[in-house]
Amino acid sequence: MAKTFTTQRRVEFCETDAAGIAHFSAFFQFMEQAEHALLRHVGMSVVHPDEEGTISWPRAAARCDYRGPCRFEDVLDVDVSILRLGRRSATYGFRFTVAGDEVAEGQMTAVCCRIGPDHPPRPIEIPQWIRDKLSPFSE
Amino acid sequence: MAKTFTTQRRVEFCETDAAGIAHFSAFFQFMEQAEHALLRHVGMSVVHPDEEGTISWPRAAARCDYRGPCRFEDVLDVDVSILRLGRRSATYGFRFTVAGDEVAEGQMTAVCCRIGPDHPPRPIEIPQWIRDKLSPFSE
Amino acid sequence: MAKTFTTQRRVEFCETDAAGIAHFSAFFQFMEQAEHALLRHVGMSVVHPDEEGTISWPRAAARCDYRGPCRFEDVLDVDVSILRLGRRSATYGFRFTVAGDEVAEGQMTAVCCRIGPDHPPRPIEIPQWIRDKLSPFSE
Amino acid sequence: MAKTFTTQRRVEFCETDAAGIAHFSAFFQFMEQAEHALLRHVGMSVVHPDEEGTISWPRAAARCDYRGPCRFEDVLDVDVSILRLGRRSATYGFRFTVAGDEVAEGQMTAVCCRIGPDHPPRPIEIPQWIRDKLSPFSE
Repeated sequence: MAKTFTTQRRVEFCETDAAGIAHFSAFFQFMEQAEHALLRHVGMSVVHPDEEGTISWPRAAARCDYRGPCRFEDVLDVDVSILRLGRRSATYGFRFTVAGDEVAEGQMTAVCCRIGPDHPPRPIEIPQWIRDKLSPFSE
Repeated sequence: MAKTFTTQRRVEFCETDAAGIAHFSAFFQFMEQAEHALLRHVGMSVVHPDEEGTISWPRAAARCDYRGPCRFEDVLDVDVSILRLGRRSATYGFRFTVAGDEVAEGQMTAVCCRIGPDHPPRPIEIPQWIRDKLSPFSE
Repeated sequence: MAKTFTTQRRVEFCETDAAGIAHFSAFFQFMEQAEHALLRHVGMSVVHPDEEGTISWPRAAARCDYRGPCRFEDVLDVDVSILRLGRRSATYGFRFTVAGDEVAEGQMTAVCCRIGPDHPPRPIEIPQWIRDKLSPFSE
Repeated sequence: MAKTFTTQRRVEFCETDAAGIAHFSAFFQFMEQAEHALLRHVGMSVVHPDEEGTISWPRAAARCDYRGPCRFEDVLDVDVSILRLGRRSATYGFRFTVAGDEVAEGQMTAVCCRIGPDHPPRPIEIPQWIRDKLSPFSE
């Protein structure tokens, strides 16, 4: 059974808007920060230099559904799991709650790429050592 | 046939990230800014005070698919249309191009709400005067 | 002797720019977040509702000097002290280090105000109960 | 007599905060965007690739004094001048007004640097061709 990684994030004042709530675009930053926290948790970074250059994970798609508002100084519990671990991409799922109440749910698909100075990001198969680290969180 | 509204947006330096491209979360800000530009174009604002209080449009959902990178000082052409004008909500579609090349495509659903200090946003039917302004852009 | 409050802040990917470092404007968000962390530490919030309305702290001035770059996933140690606790305002000082190396130093002046829906923020004398909480950090 | 460059900037919803006004940190982004608009106006970019690599302008210091609030959809008139054009750095001055009322005033010092992949930014003398473009705006 897939493991879920949980992290926390306090809503900062600069993330609120004139409607008094966290701006909807902030949730995409929260998702990415939770993804990076999961990667650090398994001993990785989203930017990985190796002898051939750099492996990183450009985003192919992201979405979020909003269930309720969250406000300045609310502490978000963020549950992260991997909905799909493909050959070249990973789709993360995120569930945001405040004191047990769901406020949003989102997804983000990132593509494993070889990054270089002289070419656009080139999708590659997820290396086995990375797959081994991510698969416990994959459903 | 539905009209498309077009606006432009230059990618600012603070919107780029260490990968050298516009951060994926910035596109959600670009979408909202294009929605607000469309509303101004038809003589409205996303925040409308009236005798009963305020009408505004909390976001229920947003998504974006990324086709290619865009960089500092790129000028984005943003095409906005209304994919669905429901009884209480509007779903906007956005297409982002740079010099004719598509870089992203997104959607955002906003719910017409009565906003008040003493209650959470309350969905209402889109008033007819607003519907009249939006319907030319609705497919 | 004045106490210093210390908090930590990891540089997130969306805070970096195409130069590969934390964008200079992010430090003003880091300062505010450190101020709010200090206020929480002494049992307050920067937004305080009371029977007369709300007390908050609009910013009158801010500045930052940059000594060196900081990068994605760097952990900033932020030292906060109160350089001046005036009759109506507080000037905070911030020192940012990464692994002991100073990367920036900043100041921010906030004015104690009564906030209301029907008037602009009105500066007030800092209430004694707030002064008592802040003065240990004042030089 | 020094010329002043003027540009405009609408306050976007995502730049407001729960106090209903543009967040103070946004003014530092506005300053940088006005600097970049001035540079484009004289036919330059803040990032200039040449045969030896890249010339760019890391920020050494920034400050802002706030005179009054500005709100969603306010149009800021931003006056930019060069307060000091040094041997290796430029200090820009910014004055922000809304409908003639001053809302903020700021300064930013940027250092002319040679940027390379293998070394930290190296301050250089401002090349004569750049100095010629900037000096009409210098007091």
